[in-house]
Amino acid sequence: MRILLVGATGTLGGAIDAELGKRHDVIKASRTRADVLVDVTDRASIAAMYKQVGKVDAVVSAVGEAHFGPLVKTTYEEFMIGVKSKLMGQVDLVLQGFDYVTDGGSFTLTSGITERDPVRGLTNSATVNAALGGFVLGASIEMPRGQRINVVSAGLFAEAADKYGSYFPGHIPVPVAVVAVAFAKSVEGGITGQRFIVDR
Amino acid sequence: MRILLVGATGTLGGAIDAELGKRHDVIKASRTRADVLVDVTDRASIAAMYKQVGKVDAVVSAVGEAHFGPLVKTTYEEFMIGVKSKLMGQVDLVLQGFDYVTDGGSFTLTSGITERDPVRGLTNSATVNAALGGFVLGASIEMPRGQRINVVSAGLFAEAADKYGSYFPGHIPVPVAVVAVAFAKSVEGGITGQRFIVDR
Repeated sequence: MRILLVGATGTLGGAIDAELGKRHDVIKASRTRADVLVDVTDRASIAAMYKQVGKVDAVVSAVGEAHFGPLVKTTYEEFMIGVKSKLMGQVDLVLQGFDYVTDGGSFTLTSGITERDPVRGLTNSATVNAALGGFVLGASIEMPRGQRINVVSAGLFAEAADKYGSYFPGHIPVPVAVVAVAFAKSVEGGITGQRFIVDR
Repeated sequence: MRILLVGATGTLGGAIDAELGKRHDVIKASRTRADVLVDVTDRASIAAMYKQVGKVDAVVSAVGEAHFGPLVKTTYEEFMIGVKSKLMGQVDLVLQGFDYVTDGGSFTLTSGITERDPVRGLTNSATVNAALGGFVLGASIEMPRGQRINVVSAGLFAEAADKYGSYFPGHIPVPVAVVAVAFAKSVEGGITGQRFIVDR
């Protein structure tokens, strides 16, 4: 398959590239240092990326930021960071991507554990991660030409545990290579409208 | 209790007013024809509402629009209707409301069945309704001074079935008076961080 991987240079993106690259032609997109440059919060940038890349069998997204900080001090603008980036950035990859994905092709997005197992300071993340689950469920019955859509919702990455583990007390870190395998299930399998939970 | 009901003039809002008004002092807010006028997509309007109303024991929200239409034809701007109105409008009621709600007081928001039982043309609704579930779960462990927060996720209202029933094949309509009782559970009970499902 010809696969467009958006967010290819991140911790997760690198692991997905390593997994899917074993069997497929992976085109890497990211804000920097990639085959194609893209900022998913910029609609024109997404349009330019698709125009440059052309038809693909799958779009895999490992992008999106959210605001971290106590909810009581969070401003509307800070809350919009996750909404514009992790939620609408990934939604827009789909809205603009239908015509670039082959019949029966797929989209696989990234959410995260905070939607179901919240931690302090990450209510913005909990919100947009939950939203992405609703999006793929709703979208799955509206996709054109047999296209599929899923989202991978993983726990704290083992590779990030030194840096962020203290914010996730009692969470069991997941090796990012294990998370990457869930993307293969979505891309190579037949499932649609699902949230793949990878907690450990 | 002194309860601020936002969206008091809608089908749901009227039923909540009838239910909570039996036992409490309900201040009705809406875009038109209410004690207090408010547009939840306008940040300054929310600020003015809280300043006018002052301290309350509970904020109940029955507001929010979402875009209806086939996903493949949905534009980014149309998708943002639900994000700005039903999602961020209700989030902003909370972000601006902490200081106006008493210690141990509560917020109760409104989502809906599309988050778990999607119908064609309502992916925007599915997304923002799911987001609200993640929001109250995340927020519940970050609320100040013992404040609580829940969301009510009801099925198709029986009172709207004549108009919208054809979009919801096989859905069992719920009398809006039954849905209103779930708001009493949230306001008068002790639960927090929960999604109250009222499917029939």
